Amino acid sequence: MDLDRRAALLGATFTSTALADAAMARVLPVSLPSPVTSVLCRYIVQAKPGDLPEPVKREVRRTVLNYTGVAVGGSRHETVERVITALAPFAGKAEANLLGRRERFDSLHAALINGISSHIFDYDDTHLKTIIHPAGPVVSAALALAQHKPVTGADFLHAAALGIETECRIGNAVFPSHYDMGWHITGSCGVFGSATACGKLLGLNEQQMAWALGIAASQPVGLKVQFGSMTKAFHAGRAAQNGLTAALMAAQNYTADPHALEGKDGWAQALSRQVNWGEVTDGLGSRFEAALNTYKPFACGIVAHPAIDAAIQLRNENKLRAEDIASVTLHANPLVLSLTGKKEPASGLEGKFSIYHCVAVGLIFGAASERQFQDAIVRDPGVIALRGKVSVRTDKAVDPAQCDLVVKLKDGRALSRHIQDAIGSLKKPMTDATLEAKFLDLADGILPKPQARALIQTCWTIDKLADAGTLALGAAL
Amino acid sequence: MDLDRRAALLGATFTSTALADAAMARVLPVSLPSPVTSVLCRYIVQAKPGDLPEPVKREVRRTVLNYTGVAVGGSRHETVERVITALAPFAGKAEANLLGRRERFDSLHAALINGISSHIFDYDDTHLKTIIHPAGPVVSAALALAQHKPVTGADFLHAAALGIETECRIGNAVFPSHYDMGWHITGSCGVFGSATACGKLLGLNEQQMAWALGIAASQPVGLKVQFGSMTKAFHAGRAAQNGLTAALMAAQNYTADPHALEGKDGWAQALSRQVNWGEVTDGLGSRFEAALNTYKPFACGIVAHPAIDAAIQLRNENKLRAEDIASVTLHANPLVLSLTGKKEPASGLEGKFSIYHCVAVGLIFGAASERQFQDAIVRDPGVIALRGKVSVRTDKAVDPAQCDLVVKLKDGRALSRHIQDAIGSLKKPMTDATLEAKFLDLADGILPKPQARALIQTCWTIDKLADAGTLALGAAL
Repeated sequence: MDLDRRAALLGATFTSTALADAAMARVLPVSLPSPVTSVLCRYIVQAKPGDLPEPVKREVRRTVLNYTGVAVGGSRHETVERVITALAPFAGKAEANLLGRRERFDSLHAALINGISSHIFDYDDTHLKTIIHPAGPVVSAALALAQHKPVTGADFLHAAALGIETECRIGNAVFPSHYDMGWHITGSCGVFGSATACGKLLGLNEQQMAWALGIAASQPVGLKVQFGSMTKAFHAGRAAQNGLTAALMAAQNYTADPHALEGKDGWAQALSRQVNWGEVTDGLGSRFEAALNTYKPFACGIVAHPAIDAAIQLRNENKLRAEDIASVTLHANPLVLSLTGKKEPASGLEGKFSIYHCVAVGLIFGAASERQFQDAIVRDPGVIALRGKVSVRTDKAVDPAQCDLVVKLKDGRALSRHIQDAIGSLKKPMTDATLEAKFLDLADGILPKPQARALIQTCWTIDKLADAGTLALGAAL
Repeated sequence: MDLDRRAALLGATFTSTALADAAMARVLPVSLPSPVTSVLCRYIVQAKPGDLPEPVKREVRRTVLNYTGVAVGGSRHETVERVITALAPFAGKAEANLLGRRERFDSLHAALINGISSHIFDYDDTHLKTIIHPAGPVVSAALALAQHKPVTGADFLHAAALGIETECRIGNAVFPSHYDMGWHITGSCGVFGSATACGKLLGLNEQQMAWALGIAASQPVGLKVQFGSMTKAFHAGRAAQNGLTAALMAAQNYTADPHALEGKDGWAQALSRQVNWGEVTDGLGSRFEAALNTYKPFACGIVAHPAIDAAIQLRNENKLRAEDIASVTLHANPLVLSLTGKKEPASGLEGKFSIYHCVAVGLIFGAASERQFQDAIVRDPGVIALRGKVSVRTDKAVDPAQCDLVVKLKDGRALSRHIQDAIGSLKKPMTDATLEAKFLDLADGILPKPQARALIQTCWTIDKLADAGTLALGAAL
């Protein structure tokens, strides 16, 4: 079924641009790239590292730092052990490091496994408009490739920026319809990001770049049904590996349809009911989605962050002790309960889906890092007791990014805190210092302290490196 | 959006079973498999080689023979050369053969590359109800795995049968909606087939089998927009590789959602607007889709086959010579022109999309094998001349599987032939002898004749082999 017939049938709100593009895609001969992919690929191929504004570069350095921390932190998780056991017998040349570990694998497997490590804790970077976690697919792929074919840090940072740009712009074009259909957008759009970054590092020409995006389009990864299983983290890693594969094949002139993204029977038609191509093509080189990346201060879904922020603020300002608390009431958007409504979580992972647990650890520990989502903490009697005192009142009028938290003390006092912009949001981003603290917390027990500190410096100066692969070496044992 | 709301909104004809299943999937806790996958996995895990009826075994042997022939035949294509050049630097242990070639790769890469070889000529097996080409994903994966972990021929044939059963049944459940959305069903359903076959060979238990199908569900491959590019063949190979990967990971207890296929935000919700789960679960062990596989006598899309069949019959029965022909008129369904309407094809590949070329070579050569779709034949002046005499009259009343061909001779005679069931259809299947002839034609120039003849015998006796990997060894150089 073609795009505009579908649009009419489904009552989908295709923009007029999208309809025009769809119509154009149908009349263009197959051998000519149609506008969307053509415009995008021209930009990717012609862009130079020097074109990137400093604030964008700075944000990508922060993205790389955050990525490296979460990948190192996740590297010893059972999920990673199992995929390594399964696939090590098939690995090729030991050329690329697994972050946080001793093993070296071929770059395709390293991209997969590092991507999995980076997403296990649900603690990675977030492009808030689409809920894409941009670095997992893009940085995992580009870093693994950098250990196969050496590239400068400046080229690496630029390629990562372009990769993030591509995946987030395509995400913008199809969000929320694509996400609502069931796709885990990090994997389904991430393939385009990793293909872009790797294609740029491989020096693809425009035609090859269109093929790389085309081969990527045929391999979207990820369904939301997997949330709660090990396969969620697989999505980020497989998207990295698929995009790298696509770029490597395109470099050898393996052909794909040059408008696989927007053409009839292409990616957007099959994977979304709405599309706004202007999100992909408008303002390339002047508007940067890569500058809008954010980082989680807390190791759980964004929706719980305002409440945790409020809990930590009240605790720290009032030197609260759990035993002094009589009751806790959270006023929040209903989304909070529908996504994190688990009243009695039984495991660390379930704790991430329990707003009750999130608030309790915020009040007790003044933190909600991966540590506060370990099984032992979720099962701790003191935590369980405080969890039992938390209640939630939902109100659709409350913005999901905001909340009010009221803590009643046994002495009769009531403390309350309104959160307008939670820490980690675009308006109140994590500072470089808090990103470093998060990094050190994640690396603790995995990398020696001096190595972890040196690695932070490597991330801050990534674009000065003669060989970007140094980053992977510095993050491994 | 959940399944029944989508159904209501889209007016999709969900069966009541499907709605009940969808409702059940939502209330079941995540840790319990919901009915569809559970029923399917129980069957796959409990099935024994001896349960397979002899006619099904016989059809799977024919499937293996046809697969081996097309994979050997396609093995020297530029498409294969390019993917090998791109990915060889990342390959692992040389454990598995590339059919028709000298190289040995790790089994994951061998599954990919053999799958690509098998689909390049569009000459492979076809499950007519879904247009799935079952063997590319399933046999490529199972054969590559058999060279990693030796298995008997009897287990191999049984696993292949189960893999074909799974992919075709899931295809039945979502066809035609899934296909109409833009998915190349061979890759998007093929992942389930390869995961099933490999999971069976790895001896997965029910829970692991559900994880294998879950990991597969997150990696559908293939969009129809790629038809005409090298990426079409990639779909079959990548589906083989993805399913093998999924089974290997599940064997190490890498978890996925146990109802990724049918659950909320799962595969069917994201990849189809219609679903009939009874197609997956009804009659398992008594009704075999694997028995309904067919094989192409001609190296082009099924839609052109009735016309070619008619042309060859008229030629052979009347000893026609091109120079005696004044005009040729085909009466056919409009689908024939919409899919293969290229009036002046310029390359071998374009020839496959030209009903004019198909009819001409049928009349001149009495054949339409890969040989008749080489560039030189498409550009041959005699072929071009006869092509120019072919005209097509379309009529919606004509069944797409039927046609009438009228050849007017210069001496004034008119010869006509009605095709009710074309050679290669379910009602008029290729005989074992014509399958052998097709095989020898494909292997010609690639394998020495005695090796090709021995390989045919290996396929006919595949389930007697002590080591199924013998098949791959016998198909390589």
